[in-house]
Amino acid sequence: MTFSITVLGSSSALPTAKRFPTAHLLNAYERFFLIDCGEGTQIQLRKFKLKFSKINHIFISHLHGDHYFGLFGLLSSFSLLGRRNALNIYAHSELENILNNQFKYYELQFKINFHKLPVNSSEIIYEDKNIFIETFPLKHRIPTNGFLFKEKKRDLNLRKDVVQEYKLSVKDILSIKQGNDYFWENGEIIKNTQLTHLPYKTRAYAFCSDTAFYPEIVKYISNADILYHEATFTEEMKDRAKNTYHSTALQAAEIAKMANVKKLLIGHFSSRYKDISILENEARSIFENTLAVIEGGKYTIEQEREIN
Amino acid sequence: MTFSITVLGSSSALPTAKRFPTAHLLNAYERFFLIDCGEGTQIQLRKFKLKFSKINHIFISHLHGDHYFGLFGLLSSFSLLGRRNALNIYAHSELENILNNQFKYYELQFKINFHKLPVNSSEIIYEDKNIFIETFPLKHRIPTNGFLFKEKKRDLNLRKDVVQEYKLSVKDILSIKQGNDYFWENGEIIKNTQLTHLPYKTRAYAFCSDTAFYPEIVKYISNADILYHEATFTEEMKDRAKNTYHSTALQAAEIAKMANVKKLLIGHFSSRYKDISILENEARSIFENTLAVIEGGKYTIEQEREIN
Repeated sequence: MTFSITVLGSSSALPTAKRFPTAHLLNAYERFFLIDCGEGTQIQLRKFKLKFSKINHIFISHLHGDHYFGLFGLLSSFSLLGRRNALNIYAHSELENILNNQFKYYELQFKINFHKLPVNSSEIIYEDKNIFIETFPLKHRIPTNGFLFKEKKRDLNLRKDVVQEYKLSVKDILSIKQGNDYFWENGEIIKNTQLTHLPYKTRAYAFCSDTAFYPEIVKYISNADILYHEATFTEEMKDRAKNTYHSTALQAAEIAKMANVKKLLIGHFSSRYKDISILENEARSIFENTLAVIEGGKYTIEQEREIN
Repeated sequence: MTFSITVLGSSSALPTAKRFPTAHLLNAYERFFLIDCGEGTQIQLRKFKLKFSKINHIFISHLHGDHYFGLFGLLSSFSLLGRRNALNIYAHSELENILNNQFKYYELQFKINFHKLPVNSSEIIYEDKNIFIETFPLKHRIPTNGFLFKEKKRDLNLRKDVVQEYKLSVKDILSIKQGNDYFWENGEIIKNTQLTHLPYKTRAYAFCSDTAFYPEIVKYISNADILYHEATFTEEMKDRAKNTYHSTALQAAEIAKMANVKKLLIGHFSSRYKDISILENEARSIFENTLAVIEGGKYTIEQEREIN
């Protein structure tokens, strides 16, 4: 059951020759969720051989151009490629006007289900049998949303062969998966731990771009397996970060530490940094498990059993 | 005096991993004219180390997304990079609404002078001391304009040293440059051809994308040094070309031949062609001097003297 993120763009507002603006693609159980859609996202999707057709949900954190100017081309291509099933877009309400105005002159051949994101509050905005998605406010110049993509809690897993060994009925199986012991026909009580494995841990990916240093978000993202947090500047440019409502690499690492996440990914790099290892090293000085994202980089969260 | 075109994108509506949508940059006497602006144009400008800041005029042939979706990002970047001088945009009137709507949420720090292109007629839309630009109608599903970028006719050039040899006054010089002979103080008549070189030939670049096969354009583009003409399909897909108001490579070559141009560039390739030499070869079968454009390719028109 895949749970992985592919980064399509790592630059801040000004792209460089090598770095595209923000876009992440989450594969959760072979469902694809696009998070932000900077200019050139469709080109990056092709370059990294990711399937367009599987994207049914697009999340836009905020309405600065480097986070959504790629939508127009992507949606046009969807239409040209024969898409007819509806697309869900989660964004601030103004985007609906922008899209309507844009596609007045070129009609898309599929429907858009537009979901308005809440401003200044958290909310579950999506749910299926495997995952749910929660949005929460970040701190930026305009309303901006973070997203937490989280697996649902699972039942206990039945051990191999026990169904046949004890001739379990569907009713028995449901009861065992809920943690009950089993009363065998010979009178023996079979302990639940002999019949089941603990389920896999629930995995979580948190996406936070763009934002000033904002410890308010810690409660939403705590214990995430991967936190993506913007790191536009180094600590040396802390004042500029503050004035523009962005973060330094050190601040991203502080948030990661406070939230006790397993891994920190940093991105949204200012075009002034030709070599991004300076940002990575700064974050690692207080949060070792940090990676500066690269375009096309795939970051997988593996399944792990709970431990008794 | 430079007169060269750099191609930034060569794909049709669906870009590929290697081919960006349409955009050409003309350098005429170190003034830069951007023609069409598909998604990712600003990324290509950076990749090929072309200076943003020198672009003051942008021409949009028509309002299909693959010809203008890159404008939003490019204009935002201009603003972020500190541009304060006005930008001239030449396009169909609807683009003005689209831009106004787009930049309602993110204010540009410079003024846009919007020039509405004529529909179904030709017109001189730009003029400076070196060149003029004429637009003319193409044949496509929506109003679409071609553009001719042409050097102005020049006076005769004075040969080196004659000013000193004959002690020419400013008045003499003006008279000689207009083709008159010179009456020297010793009574001798100095023939104009002894005093002057013929001027350089006026160079011309014609841009025609997107269009069905349309011989009506020949009168506007005849004798151009370089004709760029779209060639979305091969002749095998002639019917599809007709239905979608595009051209085949062979049709582009026919236009080049009828117009007696010196060189034909073809582009706007359908994503179905992995290897574009098939299109190039088809065009060359009737017009030898054809090149299938490549991204970053620079096509220069050299200065050449008129011949007596």
